[in-house]
Amino acid sequence: MFNVDRLFESVKERGHVCVGLDTAAEYVPDLERRRAGNDAEAVLAFNRAVVDAVCDICACFKVQIAYYEEIGLDGLRVYSDILRYIHSKGCLVIADVKRGDIADTALRYAKAHFSGDFEADFVTLSPYMGLDSIEPWLKEAQNKGKGAFVLMRTSNAGMRDFEYLEIGGGKRVYHCVGDKLTAFPANLQGNYGYRQFGVVTGCTERDEAAEIRKNYGDLFFLIPGYGAQGGGAKDAALLLRDGNGGVVNASRSIITAWRKVPGSENADNLFAAVEARRAVITMRDDILKEARN
Amino acid sequence: MFNVDRLFESVKERGHVCVGLDTAAEYVPDLERRRAGNDAEAVLAFNRAVVDAVCDICACFKVQIAYYEEIGLDGLRVYSDILRYIHSKGCLVIADVKRGDIADTALRYAKAHFSGDFEADFVTLSPYMGLDSIEPWLKEAQNKGKGAFVLMRTSNAGMRDFEYLEIGGGKRVYHCVGDKLTAFPANLQGNYGYRQFGVVTGCTERDEAAEIRKNYGDLFFLIPGYGAQGGGAKDAALLLRDGNGGVVNASRSIITAWRKVPGSENADNLFAAVEARRAVITMRDDILKEARN
Repeated sequence: MFNVDRLFESVKERGHVCVGLDTAAEYVPDLERRRAGNDAEAVLAFNRAVVDAVCDICACFKVQIAYYEEIGLDGLRVYSDILRYIHSKGCLVIADVKRGDIADTALRYAKAHFSGDFEADFVTLSPYMGLDSIEPWLKEAQNKGKGAFVLMRTSNAGMRDFEYLEIGGGKRVYHCVGDKLTAFPANLQGNYGYRQFGVVTGCTERDEAAEIRKNYGDLFFLIPGYGAQGGGAKDAALLLRDGNGGVVNASRSIITAWRKVPGSENADNLFAAVEARRAVITMRDDILKEARN
Repeated sequence: MFNVDRLFESVKERGHVCVGLDTAAEYVPDLERRRAGNDAEAVLAFNRAVVDAVCDICACFKVQIAYYEEIGLDGLRVYSDILRYIHSKGCLVIADVKRGDIADTALRYAKAHFSGDFEADFVTLSPYMGLDSIEPWLKEAQNKGKGAFVLMRTSNAGMRDFEYLEIGGGKRVYHCVGDKLTAFPANLQGNYGYRQFGVVTGCTERDEAAEIRKNYGDLFFLIPGYGAQGGGAKDAALLLRDGNGGVVNASRSIITAWRKVPGSENADNLFAAVEARRAVITMRDDILKEARN
Protein backbone atom coordinates (compact mmCIF):
# COMPACT_ATOMS: atom_id res chain seq x y z
CA MET A 1 0.00 0.00 0.00
CA PHE A 2 1.39 3.39 -0.99
CA ASN A 3 1.27 6.29 1.39
CA VAL A 4 -0.92 8.17 -1.05
CA ASP A 5 -3.60 5.57 -0.30
CA ARG A 6 -3.20 6.09 3.42
CA LEU A 7 -3.48 9.82 2.88
CA PHE A 8 -6.63 9.36 0.79
CA GLU A 9 -8.18 7.35 3.63
CA SER A 10 -7.10 9.89 6.20
CA VAL A 11 -8.78 12.69 4.21
CA LYS A 12 -11.95 10.61 4.00
CA GLU A 13 -11.99 10.07 7.75
CA ARG A 14 -10.73 13.38 9.09
CA GLY A 15 -11.03 16.05 6.40
CA HIS A 16 -8.44 17.91 4.37
CA VAL A 17 -6.39 19.87 6.86
CA CYS A 18 -2.61 19.44 6.80
CA VAL A 19 -1.28 21.05 9.98
CA GLY A 20 2.00 22.80 9.28
CA LEU A 21 4.42 22.69 12.20
CA ASP A 22 6.53 25.57 10.88
CA THR A 23 7.24 26.41 14.47
CA ALA A 24 9.56 29.33 15.16
CA ALA A 25 10.56 29.75 18.79
CA GLU A 26 8.78 33.13 18.84
CA TYR A 27 5.46 31.37 18.16
CA VAL A 28 5.68 29.62 21.54
CA PRO A 29 3.97 31.38 24.48
CA ASP A 30 6.48 33.42 26.55
CA LEU A 31 5.71 31.52 29.71
CA GLU A 32 6.61 28.22 28.06
CA ARG A 33 9.70 29.62 26.37
CA ARG A 34 11.06 30.69 29.74
CA ARG A 35 10.11 27.37 31.27
CA ALA A 36 11.84 25.39 28.51
CA GLY A 37 15.07 27.33 28.92
CA ASN A 38 16.09 27.11 25.24
CA ASP A 39 14.50 27.41 21.82
CA ALA A 40 14.85 23.77 20.85
CA GLU A 41 13.07 22.46 23.94
CA ALA A 42 10.45 25.20 23.70
CA VAL A 43 9.58 24.25 20.13
CA LEU A 44 9.48 20.54 20.97
CA ALA A 45 7.12 20.92 23.93
CA PHE A 46 4.86 23.27 21.95
CA ASN A 47 4.73 20.95 18.94
CA ARG A 48 3.87 17.96 21.11
CA ALA A 49 0.99 19.87 22.68
CA VAL A 50 -0.34 20.83 19.24
CA VAL A 51 0.01 17.29 17.90
CA ASP A 52 -1.88 15.92 20.93
CA ALA A 53 -4.66 18.44 20.36
CA VAL A 54 -5.23 18.01 16.61
CA CYS A 55 -4.04 14.55 15.62
CA ASP A 56 -7.57 13.10 15.42
CA ILE A 57 -8.99 15.90 13.25
CA CYS A 58 -6.33 16.52 10.59
CA ALA A 59 -5.37 14.52 7.52
CA CYS A 60 -1.66 14.81 8.23
CA PHE A 61 1.11 17.06 9.48
CA LYS A 62 3.75 18.95 7.52
CA VAL A 63 7.03 19.85 9.14
CA GLN A 64 9.06 22.62 7.50
CA ILE A 65 12.69 21.71 8.21
CA ALA A 66 13.96 25.30 7.81
CA TYR A 67 12.49 26.28 11.17
CA TYR A 68 14.50 23.53 12.84
CA GLU A 69 17.70 24.08 10.88
CA GLU A 70 17.59 27.69 12.03
CA ILE A 71 18.15 26.45 15.61
CA GLY A 72 21.10 24.33 14.46
CA LEU A 73 21.94 20.81 15.58
CA ASP A 74 19.61 21.01 18.58
CA GLY A 75 16.82 22.08 16.24
CA LEU A 76 17.35 19.06 14.02
CA ARG A 77 17.23 16.80 17.05
CA VAL A 78 13.80 18.32 17.76
CA TYR A 79 12.85 17.84 14.10
CA SER A 80 13.69 14.15 14.44
CA ASP A 81 11.83 13.90 17.76
CA ILE A 82 8.69 15.49 16.39
CA LEU A 83 8.60 13.20 13.35
CA ARG A 84 8.79 10.25 15.73
CA TYR A 85 6.12 11.73 17.99
CA ILE A 86 3.71 12.19 15.07
CA HIS A 87 4.28 8.56 14.06
CA SER A 88 3.64 7.42 17.64
CA LYS A 89 0.16 8.93 17.26
CA GLY A 90 -0.45 6.90 14.11
CA CYS A 91 -0.46 10.01 11.90
CA LEU A 92 1.16 10.78 8.57
CA VAL A 93 3.78 13.48 8.19
CA ILE A 94 5.14 15.34 5.18
CA ALA A 95 8.77 16.47 5.47
CA ASP A 96 8.81 19.83 3.73
CA VAL A 97 12.42 19.70 2.57
CA LYS A 98 12.06 20.64 -1.14
CA ARG A 99 15.11 18.64 -2.13
CA GLY A 100 16.25 18.46 -5.75
CA ASP A 101 19.64 17.15 -6.79
CA ILE A 102 21.45 14.78 -9.17
CA ALA A 103 20.83 11.07 -8.97
CA ASP A 104 23.58 9.92 -6.58
CA THR A 105 22.79 12.74 -4.22
CA ALA A 106 19.03 12.23 -4.52
CA LEU A 107 19.45 8.64 -3.40
CA ARG A 108 21.37 9.77 -0.30
CA TYR A 109 18.61 12.25 0.46
CA ALA A 110 15.92 9.61 -0.08
CA LYS A 111 17.63 7.33 2.42
CA ALA A 112 17.92 10.24 4.87
CA HIS A 113 14.24 11.20 4.70
CA PHE A 114 12.55 7.82 4.19
CA SER A 115 14.39 6.03 7.03
CA GLY A 116 16.48 6.64 10.13
CA ASP A 117 16.49 9.78 12.26
CA PHE A 118 14.54 11.85 9.72
CA GLU A 119 12.02 9.27 8.53
CA ALA A 120 8.86 10.87 7.17
CA ASP A 121 5.95 9.49 5.12
CA PHE A 122 6.18 12.05 2.33
CA VAL A 123 8.69 14.64 1.23
CA THR A 124 8.42 17.71 -0.96
CA LEU A 125 10.74 17.85 -3.98
CA SER A 126 11.86 20.58 -6.36
CA PRO A 127 11.80 19.61 -10.06
CA TYR A 128 14.21 22.19 -11.53
CA MET A 129 17.01 19.72 -12.34
CA GLY A 130 14.68 17.28 -14.11
CA LEU A 131 13.21 13.82 -13.80
CA ASP A 132 16.53 12.12 -13.07
CA SER A 133 16.55 14.06 -9.80
CA ILE A 134 13.09 12.64 -8.94
CA GLU A 135 13.53 9.04 -10.05
CA PRO A 136 15.85 7.84 -7.22
CA TRP A 137 13.25 9.03 -4.71
CA LEU A 138 10.56 7.08 -6.52
CA LYS A 139 12.52 3.84 -6.32
CA GLU A 140 13.29 4.34 -2.66
CA ALA A 141 9.65 5.28 -2.04
CA GLN A 142 8.48 2.04 -3.67
CA ASN A 143 10.78 0.00 -1.45
CA LYS A 144 9.41 1.67 1.65
CA GLY A 145 5.82 2.58 0.71
CA LYS A 146 6.58 6.32 0.89
CA GLY A 147 5.40 9.28 -1.18
CA ALA A 148 6.30 12.77 -2.37
CA PHE A 149 4.87 16.04 -3.63
CA VAL A 150 6.81 17.74 -6.40
CA LEU A 151 6.61 21.52 -6.67
CA MET A 152 4.35 22.36 -9.61
CA ARG A 153 2.62 25.72 -9.18
CA THR A 154 3.43 27.26 -5.83
CA SER A 155 1.46 29.90 -3.95
CA ASN A 156 4.05 32.70 -3.69
CA ALA A 157 4.06 35.75 -5.96
CA GLY A 158 7.49 34.79 -7.34
CA MET A 159 6.06 31.68 -8.99
CA ARG A 160 5.43 33.91 -12.00
CA ASP A 161 9.20 34.27 -12.56
CA PHE A 162 9.91 30.74 -13.81
CA GLU A 163 6.99 28.37 -13.13
CA TYR A 164 4.78 30.59 -15.28
CA LEU A 165 7.07 30.98 -18.29
CA GLU A 166 5.19 30.12 -21.49
CA ILE A 167 6.66 27.26 -23.46
CA GLY A 168 4.28 27.28 -26.43
CA GLY A 169 1.03 25.43 -27.13
CA GLY A 170 -0.69 27.33 -24.33
CA LYS A 171 1.53 25.59 -21.78
CA ARG A 172 3.70 26.93 -19.02
CA VAL A 173 6.70 25.41 -17.28
CA TYR A 174 4.53 24.17 -14.43
CA HIS A 175 2.28 22.26 -16.86
CA CYS A 176 5.33 20.47 -18.13
CA VAL A 177 6.16 19.38 -14.56
CA GLY A 178 2.63 18.02 -14.09
CA ASP A 179 2.60 16.40 -17.54
CA LYS A 180 5.89 14.62 -17.00
CA LEU A 181 4.91 13.33 -13.57
CA THR A 182 1.63 12.03 -14.94
CA ALA A 183 3.30 10.32 -17.89
CA PHE A 184 6.20 8.92 -15.85
CA PRO A 185 5.66 5.15 -15.94
CA ALA A 186 7.64 4.68 -12.73
CA ASN A 187 5.10 6.86 -10.90
CA LEU A 188 2.70 4.03 -10.11
CA GLN A 189 -0.99 4.33 -9.30
CA GLY A 190 -2.30 3.37 -5.90
CA ASN A 191 -5.60 1.77 -4.91
CA TYR A 192 -7.67 4.92 -5.24
CA GLY A 193 -6.38 6.05 -8.63
CA TYR A 194 -3.74 8.47 -7.40
CA ARG A 195 -0.11 8.16 -8.33
CA GLN A 196 2.53 7.62 -5.70
CA PHE A 197 4.06 11.07 -6.24
CA GLY A 198 1.73 14.06 -6.41
CA VAL A 199 2.35 17.78 -6.75
CA VAL A 200 2.30 21.02 -4.80
CA THR A 201 -0.42 23.29 -6.20
CA GLY A 202 -1.33 26.55 -4.48
CA CYS A 203 -4.95 27.62 -4.06
CA THR A 204 -4.13 31.25 -4.80
CA GLU A 205 -5.10 31.34 -8.49
CA ARG A 206 -8.77 30.50 -8.65
CA ASP A 207 -9.07 30.93 -12.42
CA GLU A 208 -6.79 28.01 -13.14
CA ALA A 209 -7.94 25.62 -10.45
CA ALA A 210 -10.57 23.72 -12.44
CA GLU A 211 -8.25 23.31 -15.41
CA ILE A 212 -5.42 22.04 -13.19
CA ARG A 213 -7.67 19.52 -11.47
CA LYS A 214 -8.91 18.33 -14.85
CA ASN A 215 -5.45 18.00 -16.35
CA TYR A 216 -3.93 16.14 -13.45
CA GLY A 217 -6.76 13.91 -12.33
CA ASP A 218 -4.53 11.18 -10.97
CA LEU A 219 -2.14 13.40 -9.04
CA PHE A 220 -2.73 14.03 -5.35
CA PHE A 221 -2.30 17.69 -4.41
CA LEU A 222 -0.55 19.27 -1.47
CA ILE A 223 -2.26 22.66 -1.43
CA PRO A 224 -0.54 25.66 0.17
CA GLY A 225 -1.71 29.27 0.07
CA TYR A 226 -4.72 28.93 2.39
CA GLY A 227 -5.31 31.78 4.82
CA ALA A 228 -2.41 34.22 5.08
CA GLN A 229 -1.57 33.92 1.36
CA GLY A 230 -5.13 34.70 0.30
CA GLY A 231 -6.65 31.36 -0.66
CA GLY A 232 -10.01 30.37 0.86
CA ALA A 233 -11.99 27.17 1.33
CA LYS A 234 -13.74 27.72 -2.01
CA ASP A 235 -10.41 28.01 -3.84
CA ALA A 236 -9.01 24.93 -2.15
CA ALA A 237 -12.15 22.92 -2.89
CA LEU A 238 -11.76 23.62 -6.63
CA LEU A 239 -8.52 21.64 -6.50
CA LEU A 240 -10.19 18.54 -5.05
CA ARG A 241 -11.60 15.64 -7.04
CA ASP A 242 -14.84 14.10 -5.79
CA GLY A 243 -14.07 15.66 -2.43
CA ASN A 244 -10.68 14.01 -2.05
CA GLY A 245 -7.30 14.07 -3.82
CA GLY A 246 -5.79 16.93 -1.86
CA VAL A 247 -4.71 18.15 1.55
CA VAL A 248 -4.78 21.84 2.37
CA ASN A 249 -1.90 23.14 4.42
CA ALA A 250 -2.11 25.86 7.04
CA SER A 251 0.56 26.63 9.55
CA ARG A 252 0.65 30.02 11.19
CA SER A 253 -3.12 30.45 11.23
CA ILE A 254 -3.28 27.27 13.30
CA ILE A 255 -0.23 27.35 15.54
CA THR A 256 -0.47 31.05 16.36
CA ALA A 257 -4.28 31.14 16.65
CA TRP A 258 -3.86 31.49 20.43
CA ARG A 259 -2.40 34.98 20.03
CA LYS A 260 -5.72 36.43 18.92
CA VAL A 261 -7.57 35.28 22.01
CA PRO A 262 -8.20 37.46 25.09
CA GLY A 263 -5.88 36.38 27.89
CA SER A 264 -3.20 35.21 25.48
CA GLU A 265 -0.53 37.13 27.38
CA ASN A 266 -0.74 34.41 30.05
CA ALA A 267 -1.11 31.53 27.59
CA ASP A 268 0.62 28.22 28.08
CA ASN A 269 1.01 25.40 25.57
CA LEU A 270 -2.33 23.85 26.49
CA PHE A 271 -4.05 27.17 25.87
CA ALA A 272 -2.32 27.39 22.48
CA ALA A 273 -3.16 23.79 21.65
CA VAL A 274 -6.85 24.27 22.41
CA GLU A 275 -6.92 27.27 20.04
CA ALA A 276 -5.05 25.28 17.41
CA ARG A 277 -7.73 22.60 17.64
CA ARG A 278 -10.45 25.20 17.30
CA ALA A 279 -8.72 26.65 14.21
CA VAL A 280 -8.36 23.21 12.62
CA ILE A 281 -12.04 22.38 13.19
CA THR A 282 -13.16 25.66 11.61
CA MET A 283 -10.86 25.19 8.63
CA ARG A 284 -11.80 21.53 8.24
CA ASP A 285 -15.51 22.29 8.27
CA ASP A 286 -15.17 25.25 5.90
CA ILE A 287 -13.41 23.08 3.35
CA LEU A 288 -15.78 20.13 3.85
CA LYS A 289 -18.74 22.42 3.21
CA GLU A 290 -17.25 23.64 -0.07
CA ALA A 291 -16.06 20.18 -1.07
CA ARG A 292 -19.65 18.90 -0.84
CA ASN A 293 -20.97 21.67 -3.12
CA MET B 1 34.02 42.75 1.06
CA PHE B 2 31.76 40.12 -0.48
CA ASN B 3 32.74 36.48 -0.46
CA VAL B 4 32.72 36.51 -4.25
CA ASP B 5 35.76 38.80 -4.02
CA ARG B 6 37.50 36.43 -1.64
CA LEU B 7 36.76 33.57 -4.01
CA PHE B 8 38.15 35.57 -6.95
CA GLU B 9 41.38 36.12 -5.01
CA SER B 10 41.55 32.50 -4.00
CA VAL B 11 41.25 31.40 -7.65
CA LYS B 12 44.02 33.84 -8.58
CA GLU B 13 46.33 32.42 -5.90
CA ARG B 14 45.49 28.73 -5.97
CA GLY B 15 43.73 27.87 -9.21
CA HIS B 16 40.15 26.86 -9.95
CA VAL B 17 39.61 23.58 -8.13
CA CYS B 18 36.65 23.32 -5.79
CA VAL B 19 37.13 20.13 -3.76
CA GLY B 20 33.79 18.41 -3.20
CA LEU B 21 33.57 16.62 0.13
CA ASP B 22 30.61 14.46 -0.94
CA THR B 23 31.98 11.84 1.38
CA ALA B 24 30.02 8.60 1.70
CA ALA B 25 31.24 6.25 4.40
CA GLU B 26 32.10 3.68 1.73
CA TYR B 27 34.66 6.09 0.25
CA VAL B 28 36.75 5.85 3.44
CA PRO B 29 39.52 3.20 3.47
CA ASP B 30 38.37 0.00 5.23
CA LEU B 31 41.14 0.17 7.78
CA GLU B 32 40.01 3.61 8.89
CA ARG B 33 36.33 2.71 8.87
CA ARG B 34 37.01 -0.11 11.29
CA ARG B 35 39.24 2.12 13.39
CA ALA B 36 36.60 4.88 13.61
CA GLY B 37 33.91 2.45 14.76
CA ASN B 38 31.02 4.30 13.09
CA ASP B 39 30.25 6.03 9.81
CA ALA B 40 30.06 9.55 11.20
CA GLU B 41 33.49 9.42 12.83
CA ALA B 42 34.98 7.68 9.79
CA VAL B 43 33.76 10.44 7.46
CA LEU B 44 34.97 13.17 9.80
CA ALA B 45 38.51 11.77 10.15
CA PHE B 46 38.75 11.17 6.40
CA ASN B 47 37.53 14.68 5.55
CA ARG B 48 39.99 16.27 7.95
CA ALA B 49 42.86 14.38 6.34
CA VAL B 50 41.76 15.52 2.87
CA VAL B 51 41.33 19.14 3.97
CA ASP B 52 44.82 19.11 5.54
CA ALA B 53 46.27 17.75 2.30
CA VAL B 54 44.64 20.08 -0.24
CA CYS B 55 43.72 23.31 1.54
CA ASP B 56 46.67 25.25 0.08
CA ILE B 57 46.06 24.22 -3.53
CA CYS B 58 42.30 24.55 -4.00
CA ALA B 59 40.12 27.61 -4.44
CA CYS B 60 37.51 26.35 -1.99
CA PHE B 61 35.63 23.33 -0.72
CA LYS B 62 32.06 22.25 -1.41
CA VAL B 63 30.23 20.10 1.09
CA GLN B 64 27.17 18.21 -0.19
CA ILE B 65 24.85 18.00 2.82
CA ALA B 66 22.97 14.92 1.50
CA TYR B 67 25.90 12.66 2.34
CA TYR B 68 25.75 13.81 5.95
CA GLU B 69 21.97 13.76 6.24
CA GLU B 70 22.09 10.14 5.13
CA ILE B 71 23.92 9.31 8.38
CA GLY B 72 21.28 11.17 10.40
CA LEU B 73 21.87 13.44 13.37
CA ASP B 74 25.43 12.19 13.86
CA GLY B 75 26.11 12.94 10.21
CA LEU B 76 24.92 16.52 10.58
CA ARG B 77 27.19 16.94 13.60
CA VAL B 78 30.06 15.90 11.33
CA TYR B 79 28.78 18.30 8.65
CA SER B 80 28.96 21.11 11.20
CA ASP B 81 32.41 20.00 12.39
CA ILE B 82 33.84 19.88 8.90
CA LEU B 83 32.57 23.36 8.04
CA ARG B 84 34.32 24.64 11.15
CA TYR B 85 37.49 22.72 10.33
CA ILE B 86 37.65 24.22 6.84
CA HIS B 87 37.24 27.69 8.31
CA SER B 88 40.01 26.99 10.83
CA LYS B 89 42.30 26.51 7.83
CA GLY B 90 41.34 29.93 6.46
CA CYS B 91 39.52 28.38 3.48
CA LEU B 92 36.17 29.11 1.87
CA VAL B 93 33.38 26.55 1.78
CA ILE B 94 30.23 26.23 -0.31
CA ALA B 95 27.32 24.49 1.41
CA ASP B 96 25.69 22.50 -1.38
CA VAL B 97 22.15 22.57 0.03
CA LYS B 98 20.14 23.68 -3.05
CA ARG B 99 17.49 25.35 -0.94
CA GLY B 100 14.52 27.11 -2.52
CA ASP B 101 11.45 28.14 -0.58
CA ILE B 102 9.04 31.03 0.11
CA ALA B 103 10.30 34.19 1.74
CA ASP B 104 9.69 33.48 5.45
CA THR B 105 11.18 30.05 5.11
CA ALA B 106 14.09 31.29 2.99
CA LEU B 107 15.04 33.69 5.76
CA ARG B 108 15.10 30.85 8.29
CA TYR B 109 17.31 28.85 5.96
CA ALA B 110 19.61 31.83 5.38
CA LYS B 111 20.08 32.21 9.12
CA ALA B 112 20.75 28.48 9.42
CA HIS B 113 23.43 28.38 6.70
CA PHE B 114 25.06 31.80 7.09
CA SER B 115 25.56 31.57 10.88
CA GLY B 116 25.56 29.15 13.79
CA ASP B 117 26.24 25.41 13.60
CA PHE B 118 25.96 25.27 9.80
CA GLU B 119 27.75 28.50 8.87
CA ALA B 120 29.21 28.37 5.36
CA ASP B 121 30.57 31.09 3.05
CA PHE B 122 28.35 30.27 0.10
CA VAL B 123 25.25 28.18 -0.47
CA THR B 124 23.66 26.71 -3.57
CA LEU B 125 20.04 27.70 -4.25
CA SER B 126 17.29 26.36 -6.50
CA PRO B 127 15.38 29.05 -8.45
CA TYR B 128 12.16 27.18 -9.30
CA MET B 129 9.90 29.18 -6.97
CA GLY B 130 11.17 32.54 -8.24
CA LEU B 131 13.11 35.58 -7.15
CA ASP B 132 11.19 36.08 -3.92
CA SER B 133 12.71 32.80 -2.76
CA ILE B 134 16.22 34.18 -3.49
CA GLU B 135 15.86 37.72 -2.16
CA PRO B 136 15.85 36.91 1.60
CA TRP B 137 19.17 35.11 1.14
CA LEU B 138 20.60 38.14 -0.61
CA LYS B 139 19.72 40.45 2.27
CA GLU B 140 21.14 38.06 4.83
CA ALA B 141 24.24 37.59 2.66
CA GLN B 142 24.79 41.35 2.55
CA ASN B 143 24.61 41.57 6.33
CA LYS B 144 27.20 38.86 6.71
CA GLY B 145 29.35 39.17 3.57
CA LYS B 146 28.20 35.78 2.27
CA GLY B 147 27.43 34.51 -1.23
CA ALA B 148 25.41 31.98 -3.22
CA PHE B 149 25.24 30.10 -6.50
CA VAL B 150 21.80 29.69 -8.02
CA LEU B 151 21.15 26.64 -10.20
CA MET B 152 21.10 27.80 -13.81
CA ARG B 153 22.13 25.06 -16.23
CA THR B 154 23.17 21.94 -14.38
CA SER B 155 25.36 19.09 -15.63
CA ASN B 156 22.96 16.13 -15.35
CA ALA B 157 21.10 14.67 -18.33
CA GLY B 158 17.73 15.59 -16.76
CA MET B 159 18.45 19.29 -17.12
CA ARG B 160 16.82 19.00 -20.53
CA ASP B 161 13.45 18.32 -18.89
CA PHE B 162 12.78 21.81 -17.51
CA GLU B 163 15.92 24.00 -17.58
CA TYR B 164 16.05 23.57 -21.36
CA LEU B 165 12.42 24.34 -22.17
CA GLU B 166 12.24 27.00 -24.89
CA ILE B 167 10.41 30.15 -23.91
CA GLY B 168 10.61 32.03 -27.20
CA GLY B 169 13.12 34.52 -28.61
CA GLY B 170 15.77 31.81 -28.74
CA LYS B 171 15.77 31.63 -24.94
CA ARG B 172 15.39 28.74 -22.57
CA VAL B 173 14.27 28.63 -18.95
CA TYR B 174 17.86 28.64 -17.73
CA HIS B 175 18.59 31.87 -19.65
CA CYS B 176 15.73 33.48 -17.81
CA VAL B 177 17.33 32.49 -14.49
CA GLY B 178 20.65 34.02 -15.55
CA ASP B 179 18.96 37.12 -17.00
CA LYS B 180 16.96 37.77 -13.84
CA LEU B 181 19.96 37.33 -11.55
CA THR B 182 22.01 39.70 -13.71
CA ALA B 183 19.28 42.32 -13.79
CA PHE B 184 18.39 41.99 -10.09
CA PRO B 185 19.42 45.35 -8.59
CA ALA B 186 19.78 43.79 -5.13
CA ASN B 187 22.48 41.47 -6.49
CA LEU B 188 25.34 43.92 -5.96
CA GLN B 189 28.70 43.88 -7.73
CA GLY B 190 31.87 43.25 -5.78
CA ASN B 191 35.37 44.69 -6.26
CA TYR B 192 36.28 42.52 -9.23
CA GLY B 193 33.10 43.04 -11.25
CA TYR B 194 31.27 39.91 -10.15
CA ARG B 195 27.88 40.01 -8.49
CA GLN B 196 27.40 38.69 -4.99
CA PHE B 197 25.26 35.75 -6.18
CA GLY B 198 26.50 33.71 -9.13
CA VAL B 199 25.16 30.61 -10.84
CA VAL B 200 25.76 26.90 -11.23
CA THR B 201 26.71 26.15 -14.84
CA GLY B 202 27.87 22.70 -15.88
CA CYS B 203 30.80 22.21 -18.24
CA THR B 204 29.09 19.35 -20.05
CA GLU B 205 27.71 21.29 -23.05
CA ARG B 206 30.72 22.73 -24.85
CA ASP B 207 28.72 24.30 -27.67
CA GLU B 208 26.98 26.73 -25.37
CA ALA B 209 29.87 27.63 -23.10
CA ALA B 210 31.14 30.69 -24.96
CA GLU B 211 27.64 32.11 -25.33
CA ILE B 212 26.90 31.57 -21.63
CA ARG B 213 30.12 33.24 -20.55
CA LYS B 214 29.37 36.17 -22.86
CA ASN B 215 25.79 36.58 -21.67
CA TYR B 216 26.58 36.44 -17.98
CA GLY B 217 29.87 38.28 -17.78
CA ASP B 218 29.36 39.52 -14.26
CA LEU B 219 28.17 36.26 -12.73
CA PHE B 220 30.67 33.99 -11.00
CA PHE B 221 30.23 30.33 -11.98
CA LEU B 222 30.25 27.23 -9.85
CA ILE B 223 31.05 24.62 -12.50
CA PRO B 224 30.07 20.97 -11.99
CA GLY B 225 30.33 18.17 -14.55
CA TYR B 226 34.13 17.85 -14.60
CA GLY B 227 35.52 14.31 -14.82
CA ALA B 228 32.93 11.60 -14.20
CA GLN B 229 30.16 13.56 -15.96
CA GLY B 230 32.25 14.07 -19.09
CA GLY B 231 33.50 17.64 -18.91
CA GLY B 232 37.22 18.31 -19.39
CA ALA B 233 39.62 21.15 -18.62
CA LYS B 234 38.99 22.65 -22.05
CA ASP B 235 35.24 22.72 -21.46
CA ALA B 236 35.62 24.25 -18.02
CA ALA B 237 38.04 26.89 -19.29
CA LEU B 238 35.46 28.09 -21.84
CA LEU B 239 33.29 29.13 -18.89
CA LEU B 240 36.01 31.33 -17.37
CA ARG B 241 36.49 35.03 -18.03
CA ASP B 242 40.07 36.27 -18.32
CA GLY B 243 41.12 33.14 -16.48
CA ASN B 244 38.92 33.76 -13.45
CA GLY B 245 35.19 34.00 -12.67
CA GLY B 246 34.63 30.32 -11.95
CA VAL B 247 35.52 27.40 -9.74
CA VAL B 248 35.40 23.86 -11.09
CA ASN B 249 34.05 21.23 -8.76
CA ALA B 250 35.25 17.66 -8.54
CA SER B 251 34.44 15.27 -5.78
CA ARG B 252 34.72 11.56 -6.35
CA SER B 253 37.69 11.84 -8.72
CA ILE B 254 39.57 13.53 -5.87
CA ILE B 255 38.40 11.81 -2.71
CA THR B 256 38.43 8.30 -4.18
CA ALA B 257 41.62 8.77 -6.23
CA TRP B 258 43.40 6.51 -3.71
CA ARG B 259 41.41 3.49 -4.90
CA LYS B 260 43.18 3.39 -8.25
CA VAL B 261 46.64 3.16 -6.73
CA PRO B 262 48.53 -0.12 -6.19
CA GLY B 263 48.50 -1.01 -2.51
CA SER B 264 45.16 0.70 -1.94
CA GLU B 265 43.79 -2.36 -0.13
CA ASN B 266 45.98 -1.32 2.83
CA ALA B 267 45.35 2.42 2.47
CA ASP B 268 44.83 4.68 5.45
CA ASN B 269 43.55 8.24 5.46
CA LEU B 270 47.00 9.70 4.90
CA PHE B 271 47.45 7.49 1.85
CA ALA B 272 44.08 8.69 0.54
CA ALA B 273 44.88 12.31 1.31
CA VAL B 274 48.19 12.16 -0.56
CA GLU B 275 46.36 10.81 -3.62
CA ALA B 276 43.69 13.49 -3.26
CA ARG B 277 46.43 16.11 -3.30
CA ARG B 278 47.96 14.57 -6.40
CA ALA B 279 44.55 14.57 -8.12
CA VAL B 280 43.92 18.21 -7.22
CA ILE B 281 47.34 19.28 -8.56
CA THR B 282 46.75 17.48 -11.86
CA MET B 283 43.27 18.97 -12.23
CA ARG B 284 44.43 22.44 -11.20
CA ASP B 285 47.29 22.43 -13.71
CA ASP B 286 45.14 21.04 -16.52
CA ILE B 287 42.64 23.84 -16.06
CA LEU B 288 45.31 26.52 -15.64
CA LYS B 289 46.92 25.43 -18.90
CA GLU B 290 43.61 25.75 -20.77
CA ALA B 291 42.70 28.98 -19.02
CA ARG B 292 45.91 30.58 -20.31
CA ASN B 293 45.20 29.60 -23.93
